Amino acid sequence: MSKQPLPVLDLAECCPTVRGAPLDEDEAQLLAHAFAALADPVRLRLLSMIAGADEVCSCDLQEPLGKSQPTVSHHTKTLAEAGLIVGEKRGRWVYWRIVPERLDALRQALAPA
Amino acid sequence: MSKQPLPVLDLAECCPTVRGAPLDEDEAQLLAHAFAALADPVRLRLLSMIAGADEVCSCDLQEPLGKSQPTVSHHTKTLAEAGLIVGEKRGRWVYWRIVPERLDALRQALAPA
Repeated sequence: MSKQPLPVLDLAECCPTVRGAPLDEDEAQLLAHAFAALADPVRLRLLSMIAGADEVCSCDLQEPLGKSQPTVSHHTKTLAEAGLIVGEKRGRWVYWRIVPERLDALRQALAPA
Repeated sequence: MSKQPLPVLDLAECCPTVRGAPLDEDEAQLLAHAFAALADPVRLRLLSMIAGADEVCSCDLQEPLGKSQPTVSHHTKTLAEAGLIVGEKRGRWVYWRIVPERLDALRQALAPA
């Protein structure tokens, strides 16, 4: 794995907002998919741990979370597929960092019209 | 139904942020629950329709959405339980409006530290 690809439609460009005009089906689908990545407490804790540093080694996520390595891998994969984090493989570990512009785009989606 | 009760822990007061310190389990659970309400395209479309006016009659949601009344009711209930909308029953219809401070609190949870 090098960098994870972002989904086809880039939220940072298209920025549909929930508080503007009614969303069409495609916009709603895209946003729902992104919010689904945030709809899990383990993923939110992982995201907050990764956001707290420039990058975080996958080897440092398991212990503070108290979860198994497969569980951690499953959730980092989901976060990466949603474009919220990117990973770089070095040796046997993946080093994760957040994608700030992606989190900003989700914030923007909830902004007042 | 008059106004929907907000969940016990008020996001607008406690404002844990995903991009600050690592979230503890309670904070992550609370935020995950709120984001789960946004993790569905029908609910996002409903929310955007309700956000677009001061209030929206439940009688006006079914047609533009192309969904059955039970489906609409199910999803408005989920949004209301997450504190994102409040409803007031008048006659046979419920009139919904958004809870701006609640959406602002979720925005804040995604803000840079």
